[in-house]
Amino acid sequence: MIKANDPTRTSWAEVPKDSDFPIQNLPFGVFRTASNPSPRACTAIGSNVVDLAVMNYLDLLDDLEIDNEVFSNRYLNDLMALGKPKLRQLRDRLADLLDARNEEARDLAWHFLHPMDKVELLLPVRIGDYTDFYSSLEHALNVGTMFRPDNPLLPNWKHLPVGYHGRASSIVVSGTPVQRPMGQTMPEGATLPVFGPTKLLDFELEMAFVVGKPNPMGQPVDITDAEDHIFGLMLFNDWSARDIQSWEYVPLGPFLAKNFASTVSPWVVTLDALEPFRTAGPVQDPQPLQYLQFQGEKSYDLRLEVEIQTQGGARAVVCRSNFKNLYWNMCQQFAHHTSGGCNMNIGDLCASGTISGPTPDSYGSMLELTWRGTKPIRMPDGTERKFIQDGDTVTMRGWGEKNGVRIGFGEAAGKVLPPL
Amino acid sequence: MIKANDPTRTSWAEVPKDSDFPIQNLPFGVFRTASNPSPRACTAIGSNVVDLAVMNYLDLLDDLEIDNEVFSNRYLNDLMALGKPKLRQLRDRLADLLDARNEEARDLAWHFLHPMDKVELLLPVRIGDYTDFYSSLEHALNVGTMFRPDNPLLPNWKHLPVGYHGRASSIVVSGTPVQRPMGQTMPEGATLPVFGPTKLLDFELEMAFVVGKPNPMGQPVDITDAEDHIFGLMLFNDWSARDIQSWEYVPLGPFLAKNFASTVSPWVVTLDALEPFRTAGPVQDPQPLQYLQFQGEKSYDLRLEVEIQTQGGARAVVCRSNFKNLYWNMCQQFAHHTSGGCNMNIGDLCASGTISGPTPDSYGSMLELTWRGTKPIRMPDGTERKFIQDGDTVTMRGWGEKNGVRIGFGEAAGKVLPPL
Repeated sequence: MIKANDPTRTSWAEVPKDSDFPIQNLPFGVFRTASNPSPRACTAIGSNVVDLAVMNYLDLLDDLEIDNEVFSNRYLNDLMALGKPKLRQLRDRLADLLDARNEEARDLAWHFLHPMDKVELLLPVRIGDYTDFYSSLEHALNVGTMFRPDNPLLPNWKHLPVGYHGRASSIVVSGTPVQRPMGQTMPEGATLPVFGPTKLLDFELEMAFVVGKPNPMGQPVDITDAEDHIFGLMLFNDWSARDIQSWEYVPLGPFLAKNFASTVSPWVVTLDALEPFRTAGPVQDPQPLQYLQFQGEKSYDLRLEVEIQTQGGARAVVCRSNFKNLYWNMCQQFAHHTSGGCNMNIGDLCASGTISGPTPDSYGSMLELTWRGTKPIRMPDGTERKFIQDGDTVTMRGWGEKNGVRIGFGEAAGKVLPPL
Repeated sequence: MIKANDPTRTSWAEVPKDSDFPIQNLPFGVFRTASNPSPRACTAIGSNVVDLAVMNYLDLLDDLEIDNEVFSNRYLNDLMALGKPKLRQLRDRLADLLDARNEEARDLAWHFLHPMDKVELLLPVRIGDYTDFYSSLEHALNVGTMFRPDNPLLPNWKHLPVGYHGRASSIVVSGTPVQRPMGQTMPEGATLPVFGPTKLLDFELEMAFVVGKPNPMGQPVDITDAEDHIFGLMLFNDWSARDIQSWEYVPLGPFLAKNFASTVSPWVVTLDALEPFRTAGPVQDPQPLQYLQFQGEKSYDLRLEVEIQTQGGARAVVCRSNFKNLYWNMCQQFAHHTSGGCNMNIGDLCASGTISGPTPDSYGSMLELTWRGTKPIRMPDGTERKFIQDGDTVTMRGWGEKNGVRIGFGEAAGKVLPPL
């Protein structure tokens, strides 16, 4: 077992009962404060962030021989480049430092501990390329049934993890407002398109993995090695404008319907921390081709939810899903992505596609939850939602729970602003 | 007129008659030499490259007040960030320094001039995001006719410049070998897919523009301002594996069929240098929506060609096309791309899509030239080509010519290696 994951450990730092960040999590992020606006690496413990640059400055990480520039850095990319063995050492060390028995570190805490609600958490990864998969069978079936009732699942879907390239520049960190996009649409029954604000703004509940180890161009990564290339996971909201999408997407895929914004959570939770939640994914039938065959449990039992909060403050959790619902796992996605020789770089992001489950309350988008707007969701203030309205805040959360330990992802939240 | 474009100028440096790089061109690139492996910015004159870092070091660019780090840089991004007015000053200055009348600069030439065939030209731009458009009507009609004979042109095509996101990490500079990709395909008549080397490797003749001025997220760029954001143009080969593409691309677009490699030429030719070749594009009917309407001549008369050279050395120009064939122009592409608020960064690349013309010898891909392999191309050595074979080198060239001045792009060349 990874030492840092020991479920019996507790921290001298206060960890509220439902916190996403017990001492067994220790995710990585980047933050800054009003008094020190230089971005630097951090981890989380309870309701606090831990300044890793200061920890290193205090010689608490000294013998790990990690250059301070790696911590005093706008992004985690150089930290991830150290490789998993070194980062396991770092996580183990952080666990030792934050352990309830470590009074020496506790006495130094005023140097490196900051209340999370007093800091600014930044986009933690410099994203090179971003890929979006489409790996939930339930989502593919739901969307397919709506738009192609005779032919809901396309013939390639069960043979390969369908994916496409997305826009990296407009991926923003949780808390960044999202402006309702303008775009070209073809209204139902019209013969000419119009240009205006999207009328069908949607979220997509996804998770994204962060590439932590590169592969050179022309050198595919075997599926048995894929896990070694995946550093960790984040929550991902793939905001979508359905009316723009349905008009533009043939034959080359979604473009402006998706590239106006995507929201990620500020923490990268390591695969190591998620180890206790490993589970089998759905049975794959037909058996995929050899390069997509894997051994062992490659999925994770992680609960996911989406909450809508209105401008007036009314809140409703509208979706409860689980990461393990995904038909194609991350190792298959990674092996497929590199199978033709595509080179992946540290910091590249691969999102899962909308994670819908089998029950109507587990669908990961408004498109599915309201079945194209035909079954509106009633909010506690009596208003209805077919899609997302201006002033609404969409918040995604995710966590695993086992042996009394809850490992969470924080939030991926975004408030929708009216169009320009 | 831009001073550097004066067609009466000549240089003290030798410029062969058919050179792409007379004193009126002055494109930007990045190079290194065996004796000095530090990458640095350069321009081209005739068969030589001009070391801009050394020129600056010799105080020849002094009063332009450009920091030397901008020239002694792996990429041109910081140079482009100076903005068009400053870069016009720089191009004008370079023209003065290389002018036949400037004996002082000529006497210093041994410091900054290198024969182009003795240097390594590098990928000149740090590409953030890469977008591929689909803006040639002839290409869209050809492909559409082959795959959807009843419905060749999809209903959105004439209303918006269809585009999609591509892979930035695998864009390589001319001269880099390209390995034939493995991939999943569904053979004709089969019921199960197979995995193996692509059998239908193709090129796509494209040009790509480089973004030189960013726009913030949520702030669309009006079409009247779009040109100001486009720094220059490069040749672009969007290598494609047709059998992988046709199996994977529904419903989200091309993925592994394209992301194994794309080849760009090493020079960014500025829009300023292309000013003499401005021309009108095709008449657009129906008139596009207002945000895509433009004034003036927004296309460029640039001749393009594709040559195949076999392993044995047999060479044939298989395609002669022209940039002006594009239905949608770059200003429309840029305005559309940002119309929903997508932020563009310096160094982002937008490729045109395959540039096919109206005649069969102007089709910009083997798919079209051989009409899906039904009309093979005969090479001078008697062999036939339906698609690209291992050992073949595909070279793209492009240039404008007017008033005895030829402004060219150099080459985008790549040799195909056998699969791993």
